Amino acid sequence: MRIEIICTGDEVLTGRIVNTNFAYISQKLEDVGLSVRWETTVGDDRESLLRAFQLAGERADAVIVNGGLGPTVDDLSQEIAAQAAGVELSLNDAWLGRMEDFFRRRSRVMPPNNTKQAMLPVTAEVIDNPIGTACGFALDIGRARFFFTPGVPRELRRMLEEQIIPRLLAKSGLQTTIRLKRFHSYGLGESHVDTLLAGVDALVPDGSVKLGFRAHYPQLETKLTVRGRDVDDVRAKLGPVEREVRKRLGNFILAEDDQTLEGVVLAELARREASLATVETFTGGQIAARIAHLPGAEKVFRRGVVGRALAEIGAAVGLAGAVPAGELSRETAEAVARAAREATGATHALAVLVDLDEGPDRIELGGTICLAIATERETASRRSRILGGREWVRLGAVELGLDCLRRQLQGLPVYERTDFEKT
Amino acid sequence: MRIEIICTGDEVLTGRIVNTNFAYISQKLEDVGLSVRWETTVGDDRESLLRAFQLAGERADAVIVNGGLGPTVDDLSQEIAAQAAGVELSLNDAWLGRMEDFFRRRSRVMPPNNTKQAMLPVTAEVIDNPIGTACGFALDIGRARFFFTPGVPRELRRMLEEQIIPRLLAKSGLQTTIRLKRFHSYGLGESHVDTLLAGVDALVPDGSVKLGFRAHYPQLETKLTVRGRDVDDVRAKLGPVEREVRKRLGNFILAEDDQTLEGVVLAELARREASLATVETFTGGQIAARIAHLPGAEKVFRRGVVGRALAEIGAAVGLAGAVPAGELSRETAEAVARAAREATGATHALAVLVDLDEGPDRIELGGTICLAIATERETASRRSRILGGREWVRLGAVELGLDCLRRQLQGLPVYERTDFEKT
Repeated sequence: MRIEIICTGDEVLTGRIVNTNFAYISQKLEDVGLSVRWETTVGDDRESLLRAFQLAGERADAVIVNGGLGPTVDDLSQEIAAQAAGVELSLNDAWLGRMEDFFRRRSRVMPPNNTKQAMLPVTAEVIDNPIGTACGFALDIGRARFFFTPGVPRELRRMLEEQIIPRLLAKSGLQTTIRLKRFHSYGLGESHVDTLLAGVDALVPDGSVKLGFRAHYPQLETKLTVRGRDVDDVRAKLGPVEREVRKRLGNFILAEDDQTLEGVVLAELARREASLATVETFTGGQIAARIAHLPGAEKVFRRGVVGRALAEIGAAVGLAGAVPAGELSRETAEAVARAAREATGATHALAVLVDLDEGPDRIELGGTICLAIATERETASRRSRILGGREWVRLGAVELGLDCLRRQLQGLPVYERTDFEKT
Repeated sequence: MRIEIICTGDEVLTGRIVNTNFAYISQKLEDVGLSVRWETTVGDDRESLLRAFQLAGERADAVIVNGGLGPTVDDLSQEIAAQAAGVELSLNDAWLGRMEDFFRRRSRVMPPNNTKQAMLPVTAEVIDNPIGTACGFALDIGRARFFFTPGVPRELRRMLEEQIIPRLLAKSGLQTTIRLKRFHSYGLGESHVDTLLAGVDALVPDGSVKLGFRAHYPQLETKLTVRGRDVDDVRAKLGPVEREVRKRLGNFILAEDDQTLEGVVLAELARREASLATVETFTGGQIAARIAHLPGAEKVFRRGVVGRALAEIGAAVGLAGAVPAGELSRETAEAVARAAREATGATHALAVLVDLDEGPDRIELGGTICLAIATERETASRRSRILGGREWVRLGAVELGLDCLRRQLQGLPVYERTDFEKT
């Protein structure tokens, strides 16, 4: 079944508001195994709306239209729906009564322009909106069934889940189940992972596993979309592919599905009733800011120290005068991490010290990162070079620091080489 | 001139990521007086891409296509662009060289699949991407000029502003000069500011000044778009409106145009050769992270301390045992700020202490914020309540802290009431 979405409204078309309704609708449909094939956004403009409805009506089996059901003059969905379907608008007495009730229950008198919300194409099937005055409706335009929904997110959500998705599933006759499996990694570029994973989707020969990526530096998301008859079939298909991805990406997988790197680190620390101190320079508090506010972090996050000068860092962790002001070294990072652990009583201390190159903020600008993780038993450290400008170095250093801590906590090597660094 | 946007990619079509690129492009065009008329989103699918290109090529004068320029097999923009334009793809040696350089400067070898990014339609005009390997390009499809841009936001932004908008303005033949004047404020809601500024655009009676807003909590951007014959005309029209906006929003304007709150704070501190220490609890390092990494901050940002427990904060600033563990008060914040100043030798210390309510993370959840700013001469402090859930409280507390510091530095009252707080 081919499904299209049409989003309407000048607010969305001009970018005044980011279109989160579309992403919501599309994800909800994906979750039940339906896919959106095409999305169109047009403004509150008769000609564009009519053309958008006609085009979608020629291509699709089902179309969800979002927005334009309000009481003001720029809300045009009912009018243009009637025009596109070649039918008249007429006042729906039942919905008018519902609206009057709605206002009465709130001790308000319905303004006259709300009457417009009860004007529906005569062939429309009413789709209930239990929490608002915008009346949803369905009708045929061209070869497609159109579903008209309100722009107010909570009204849309309720109508979509309770009314429209059941109608779409019935219309599609769909039996398949879908599962999206996600792996998050740090340190390998998209094309590198693409090469490493070549052929994994072919482990299920019927083409029902699809491999995809989403790069958002410094992390990369690897996605497997699996289709099957039912949950068991999906699980059986996913199993071997999932195992192969884990094997090939190995230690670089830092989290799966809805987990985050900072969440994994926090959970590892919480599990052993450990506590954390962080010391940062150029990352400027960004490492602390990833963890310290999370629910549960109040028991784990002990103290974060930020300073731009090594001497200041030294003073803050009780190493006054003992930190060499010269070139950054792994030894310095180790001394700082150990001192931070002692000064705060935390079981774990992470020190990420960055020596940013001099010069203009260009793509060639780099930074040297010396980081160390001190625990009761040992101090692990590594040195890295990241190039790519101030922001790139900063983001990379934050991720490298957190990921090394994750590796240390999971008993993995802290110093595996990444694609983003120069040694 | 009719402009359309085509967004591509399964990620966006399936709603896995919210399409912020589209809103960004559309707003940027609005800012220079151009309007988007139609937007289409399609997936990484040959048939849909071709049809979308053809339809837009029939309707529009200019089309911006976003995404699909990456190195992987699902990146299809160049291939389908060539097909839609009826031309061949060929290897662009100049871009290939640029990419090899790009990798060489990062001491990496270019993976073979990146070569694909240098395959361009033979009629394409290259559009430079100074910060990535995706090559932008322009070519004609149907009656429209198509501009192909990368999906990576920072690459898109740079290419749009430096390369594409000037080409669109030239193509549109817009003779008018346009200026976008922006004011950034914190503490007043959009409808409040809308009311406060009622009628300011009418100070220029010919309708050439347009007032608009962009709300991104906790800040609000107030925008004046001014059209005129030339720079002088624009300046003459803008002058009185600008002054009136400053007068009506007063102390709430924290920055203008490309300035940021943290940039203004840093500049004020740098101007008086001052230095800053920050102390944070639930904001978790976010206040430090706004300032400490900025160019020039290495001379100003002395030390940041983050802790979730008041006792830990006390220990970190040399007040061990002296910070009452009970209810948070302005006095505690003042004592902490003064101690932080003394412990670090900074001229200014900002302490933002948050007592987060107990309970589930719902819209009713709030936090009590006690903040203080200590200088050599005085200590200013204030207490606030912010409601709206964990994230809302955290973002609000960061902004409130930085804005109070801005106010202190500019000699303005630190304790003016905002729309976001409950007393």
